[in-house]
Amino acid sequence: MNNDLILLGHGSGGRLSHQLLDELIIPALSGLEPVAQNDAALLDSPSGRLAFTTDSYVVDPVFFPGGNIGDLAVNGTVNDLAMMGAKPLWMSVGLILEEGFSKKELAEILASMRRAADLAGIRIVTGDTKVVPRGKADRIFINTSGIGVVEHDLVISGANARPGDSIIVSGTIGDHGIAVMASREGLELGTTVKSDSAALNSLVTELVSGLGSCLHVLRDPTRGGVATTLKEIALQSGVDLRLREDSLPVKSAVKGVCSILGLDPLYVANEGKLLLFAASESASRAVEIMKRNPLGIDAAIIGEVTGKGGGRISLETCSGGSRSVEMLSGEQLPRIC
Amino acid sequence: MNNDLILLGHGSGGRLSHQLLDELIIPALSGLEPVAQNDAALLDSPSGRLAFTTDSYVVDPVFFPGGNIGDLAVNGTVNDLAMMGAKPLWMSVGLILEEGFSKKELAEILASMRRAADLAGIRIVTGDTKVVPRGKADRIFINTSGIGVVEHDLVISGANARPGDSIIVSGTIGDHGIAVMASREGLELGTTVKSDSAALNSLVTELVSGLGSCLHVLRDPTRGGVATTLKEIALQSGVDLRLREDSLPVKSAVKGVCSILGLDPLYVANEGKLLLFAASESASRAVEIMKRNPLGIDAAIIGEVTGKGGGRISLETCSGGSRSVEMLSGEQLPRIC
Repeated sequence: MNNDLILLGHGSGGRLSHQLLDELIIPALSGLEPVAQNDAALLDSPSGRLAFTTDSYVVDPVFFPGGNIGDLAVNGTVNDLAMMGAKPLWMSVGLILEEGFSKKELAEILASMRRAADLAGIRIVTGDTKVVPRGKADRIFINTSGIGVVEHDLVISGANARPGDSIIVSGTIGDHGIAVMASREGLELGTTVKSDSAALNSLVTELVSGLGSCLHVLRDPTRGGVATTLKEIALQSGVDLRLREDSLPVKSAVKGVCSILGLDPLYVANEGKLLLFAASESASRAVEIMKRNPLGIDAAIIGEVTGKGGGRISLETCSGGSRSVEMLSGEQLPRIC
Repeated sequence: MNNDLILLGHGSGGRLSHQLLDELIIPALSGLEPVAQNDAALLDSPSGRLAFTTDSYVVDPVFFPGGNIGDLAVNGTVNDLAMMGAKPLWMSVGLILEEGFSKKELAEILASMRRAADLAGIRIVTGDTKVVPRGKADRIFINTSGIGVVEHDLVISGANARPGDSIIVSGTIGDHGIAVMASREGLELGTTVKSDSAALNSLVTELVSGLGSCLHVLRDPTRGGVATTLKEIALQSGVDLRLREDSLPVKSAVKGVCSILGLDPLYVANEGKLLLFAASESASRAVEIMKRNPLGIDAAIIGEVTGKGGGRISLETCSGGSRSVEMLSGEQLPRIC
């Protein structure tokens, strides 16, 4: 019996489960005393509305340039809270482990979760671990659910885009998806594209206080990329959008890999970028605020809401033409997060 | 392309993901309007402490006598909140689906989640769906995270067992584990043992209001069974326990299957039972309250806290002997929830 590997018995709920929890998982994730292990965490209810979100992470490979499934899971849930204008408070961690997964890799993943949580100022307060037999899962899947508090009265929602709004992206697009794809396919690129995985809550705090009610929509363009996310917003708000291709910030390495793989950066996942809709008079202020933050250094205005409508998006291409943008169809990039 | 099966593209975040959400998942789970799909749910903060919990479900088989992975996931998270004395309010649902999983079975599972949530009075308010390639997961895994509110000032905790306390179980033990094992192994038993999967929050409400500060510990004996759960409590509270084997309520069919499979009912999982520690003077009242509720009809006093100590549990056997009870060791019953 190899002591370095996860065993089925680690998921039994019995002695081995407790050992794994006490010796590896709890020390890695939190300052929880073993004595505080109850069925749920008890938390002081904040004043203000709560935001509540969940995401499961099944990314392949588990480790990729710029991060791993652990910090990705923390940042993803922090960002889902931040996109509601909420301050992230507490997080749960649900692990599904495949029998035979390396404890060393698990420890590394948990350590990066803890670092990411500390950096974002969110506390990991409760969790769960299951183990399934070899071949019944792919190494490790992680669910993170998060609770945040909304400390302002603004309406920030995908249904709140308004005619005339400017559309702003906080930086270069497609970095995460290309980093994962290139790593999965073992592409030799000469240069390494790194995932942009990052917690955006500090940037959102600055935007909320700087823009106030001029801030209408926040959304992070993850699976499906900027195109799919904008299409969701257009449909939710009942508006039409126009984008300018030459305004879209894309790293040249990402462009290169996209052309090798036949991908459009507009559809490639991001994990540390946000899309913002704001009244046009505050657009340049929004870009300024973003550029002052390292996470928004490449921010750009990429288009606008042309009016009420059925959710159409037209892209003015670099060549001077125009094409319609739809949601991602098919399975372009499975297991990207 | 078979329209009845889950495809990888259903996890892309794009058009197929939206179809699956709009046509199957959201209508099945909730009254959420598609327009309300944001990154997180917005909720009014209740007054009182919050309870927050998470659990992933990987049970095999997915359907078993008395339930399926869906109602199991809802009841399990409701019960984790209830065991803190909390009133369950909101729940998230994270689905990890294997490519090729049947949409019909998914719909059936989601419908039973909705029914279980309605029955327990908890609202499913947010969710996430991922799809992994065939062979990278086993049909369906579900994470449910839950938020509840604690509307009383009692200290109910695994660390709160006190010398002299009576230990009470709310009904027969081992039903869930045996139902799943028998179904997995295809055992022909002549009789069917059904899972006890049920939401215990109504029973807990009655116990909290009926027992007040005499109620010290609540815990549901799931993975690892009554033995492992009692050992956890004994260690957390720093007390020793004594159990009487002839007081343990066990269905004769469960006893039968246990002897065929070489299992001890004390270590077999339950999903609709609770263990309660209460001051001895209120023990008979606790049993009375339980017996008035259909979920507590077979309630019994099974032992007591003998004093401060290192967490030892001694079992007085039916034959008049005594043996020590430890946590489940090894992998007796993997994927039982």
